[in-house]
Amino acid sequence: MSESKKRILLMVLDGAGDRACPELRGLTPLQHVRTPNLDWFVEHGIAGLCDPISPGVRAGSDTAHLSILGYDARAVYTGRGPFEAIGAGVDIQPGDVAFRCNFATVNSDMEILDRRAGRIREPETEQLAEALDGIEIDGIECSVHAGTEHRAVLVLRGDGLSPDVTDCDPGEDSHLLRCEPLTEEAQLTADVVNGFLDEAYERLRSHTVNRKRSAAGLPPANILVPRGAGGYPDIESFQEKYGISATCVAGVGLVKGICKVCGLDVYPLPPVCDGGMDSDLIMKMEGVLEALEEYDFVLMNIKAPDVAGHDGDAKAKSEVIKRIDAAVGFFRSRMPEDLVVVITCDHCTPCSLQDHSGDPVPIAFYTQGMIWDDAGEFSETGCSRGMVGRIRATDIIPICMDLANRTSKFGS
Amino acid sequence: MSESKKRILLMVLDGAGDRACPELRGLTPLQHVRTPNLDWFVEHGIAGLCDPISPGVRAGSDTAHLSILGYDARAVYTGRGPFEAIGAGVDIQPGDVAFRCNFATVNSDMEILDRRAGRIREPETEQLAEALDGIEIDGIECSVHAGTEHRAVLVLRGDGLSPDVTDCDPGEDSHLLRCEPLTEEAQLTADVVNGFLDEAYERLRSHTVNRKRSAAGLPPANILVPRGAGGYPDIESFQEKYGISATCVAGVGLVKGICKVCGLDVYPLPPVCDGGMDSDLIMKMEGVLEALEEYDFVLMNIKAPDVAGHDGDAKAKSEVIKRIDAAVGFFRSRMPEDLVVVITCDHCTPCSLQDHSGDPVPIAFYTQGMIWDDAGEFSETGCSRGMVGRIRATDIIPICMDLANRTSKFGS
Repeated sequence: MSESKKRILLMVLDGAGDRACPELRGLTPLQHVRTPNLDWFVEHGIAGLCDPISPGVRAGSDTAHLSILGYDARAVYTGRGPFEAIGAGVDIQPGDVAFRCNFATVNSDMEILDRRAGRIREPETEQLAEALDGIEIDGIECSVHAGTEHRAVLVLRGDGLSPDVTDCDPGEDSHLLRCEPLTEEAQLTADVVNGFLDEAYERLRSHTVNRKRSAAGLPPANILVPRGAGGYPDIESFQEKYGISATCVAGVGLVKGICKVCGLDVYPLPPVCDGGMDSDLIMKMEGVLEALEEYDFVLMNIKAPDVAGHDGDAKAKSEVIKRIDAAVGFFRSRMPEDLVVVITCDHCTPCSLQDHSGDPVPIAFYTQGMIWDDAGEFSETGCSRGMVGRIRATDIIPICMDLANRTSKFGS
Repeated sequence: MSESKKRILLMVLDGAGDRACPELRGLTPLQHVRTPNLDWFVEHGIAGLCDPISPGVRAGSDTAHLSILGYDARAVYTGRGPFEAIGAGVDIQPGDVAFRCNFATVNSDMEILDRRAGRIREPETEQLAEALDGIEIDGIECSVHAGTEHRAVLVLRGDGLSPDVTDCDPGEDSHLLRCEPLTEEAQLTADVVNGFLDEAYERLRSHTVNRKRSAAGLPPANILVPRGAGGYPDIESFQEKYGISATCVAGVGLVKGICKVCGLDVYPLPPVCDGGMDSDLIMKMEGVLEALEEYDFVLMNIKAPDVAGHDGDAKAKSEVIKRIDAAVGFFRSRMPEDLVVVITCDHCTPCSLQDHSGDPVPIAFYTQGMIWDDAGEFSETGCSRGMVGRIRATDIIPICMDLANRTSKFGS
């Protein structure tokens, strides 16, 4: 092996893939927007399509990022709660059961009036989380941690817990559901969740934050809606699995959580890189450039296209992609030479669907000295013309590692 | 998820894929024939190639249809006999062992003179099957059911049976083979089959039908040749697995049998839609349109291209494809809007081979509001230019379900 080892940057444009948007004359945002900087990487490398899990399977951000990092999501995924918890900076431990929650608005019949309590956010959610902290039911300690926007995490700690319980989120229905055990061993856990919800409602309804919100005509955040119960994920460390130092540059808690649980470091970013629609992408790219000086492998996530997709706003998604392209241009003019760059999405978030789809996502691999194929445009159709063909997200790290001259031979 | 659920139509053009045909100046029938209606679905959707099982594996119609319906054929396939039996309307039960059979012509040395007994068919085969019904050997009840053309089904019922026995079909060789057990437990079954064959020869040789055939210079159907022994298939219901109501619109027994055993309903069709070369395709399309009013999912099979392929007749296959295209045009002008359409083949049946090959088959996915790729022609090469890439038949239902907005998210 005469070439030296390269560093690897994996850029995840969260939810950037799409379907035909009527507002964009039947194009996807990636097809619609001119993206010379993203396209540069396609032109000077190879491209294809990638299934986050397998064809047709609608991946969550969590399962998709696990796959992108080379893990079999079906084997390691243990419910979203623990990933959210870790993302929110909660030190969850083996034996804990964690839930992802929304602050929501209910009436006294526990009918949900607003699933996001008027999109309440920090610092209000932090004050409410604090009010719920320290509740203890049947010897189980309950802790609540505010997350991004209206989101929060509930962690149960104590003996005899089980993650095999139902969600309290009614989805389409309108009444908060009671938590039910799915196995005999989970009875205690379900009882604790239900006891916690009763107590939470009592504490939240009269809280100053909510009295002020009601006075201002805003929906009070008077309940927490838990779902996605999971135990502590037992995942082999990425750094050990691949023998490289690795960090993530991401704003959104869930992605940071997944990376952490996979053993990646979380690179510190200023608060303006929060993963929202207005996240400062140039500053994020500066973070990436810095991180590449310290680490062999950097996963960068830009959340904004996913947010626009969930909002069903094809124009906003196009604007975000324009901003991403500019940031990629900023990065390209400063990037080190010994670098493998992969650009892809964790899943599509079609505006028509306002949710993730099971469509494959575009992917491009770039490094100096590689073959160039016929693909020249970073889009769903543009990348499909490339020589990568159709791969699965679990193939990404092995391909990167090989382009980075970091693989060992299987056989001789 | 803001879009509503769609219905799904899976059109299987049985054996339509091919290899280069000298009679068609080196083109395949799908390349040779102008098919504007099939092409319309390719132009307005996405296309690719699909391996019925995996690259290079020659699928049967049964294993291919199992795969197309999303089942791992290697896991669930238990011999062709049970599928033929179910297709012929036989109520086979757990514990039974079923064989597919040909009526054939032998001399007194059990040398096979004509493997299809001059392509004998109904009503003669029905009379012969009746003559064989009710034979009992070693306490095992033997029943025979006439199938399509020279085909029939033998079902053994009783205690202690096993499907682990050899075929009696000599293939290239010319003598009827004795049935041999492949395990100790299968000795009884082999003995019963051999006893049955002796008795069947005695009953058939002197049967009126055969006396008349001999008098007319036709080969008598004086033996049944059993092969493909299998027990009752234990398959998870398609309707439960995917949570949708499902039916099949098919003429040929084997396809109906596979669909039935997978828990699909079998939509009633008039006898002119029998899956033969002259099957009424417009009437079949009317059946599809009706079925789509009642069901979420419809699998339609058109058998004629496979028949032409087995006959090695590239011109006849081209004519059939022309007729299919006209029927697809009829369908297209009447189809509901909220529909996902998939057009594919279960396998290729190259005219040069007169049998199935392990080549991948063309596939196209269409629904309103989807991306359009570069492919524009429903053929082996035409579809290969599309963005679907190369998938496996087991990916088809997940992709359809996703395009139909019927999948749930894996993760969040």
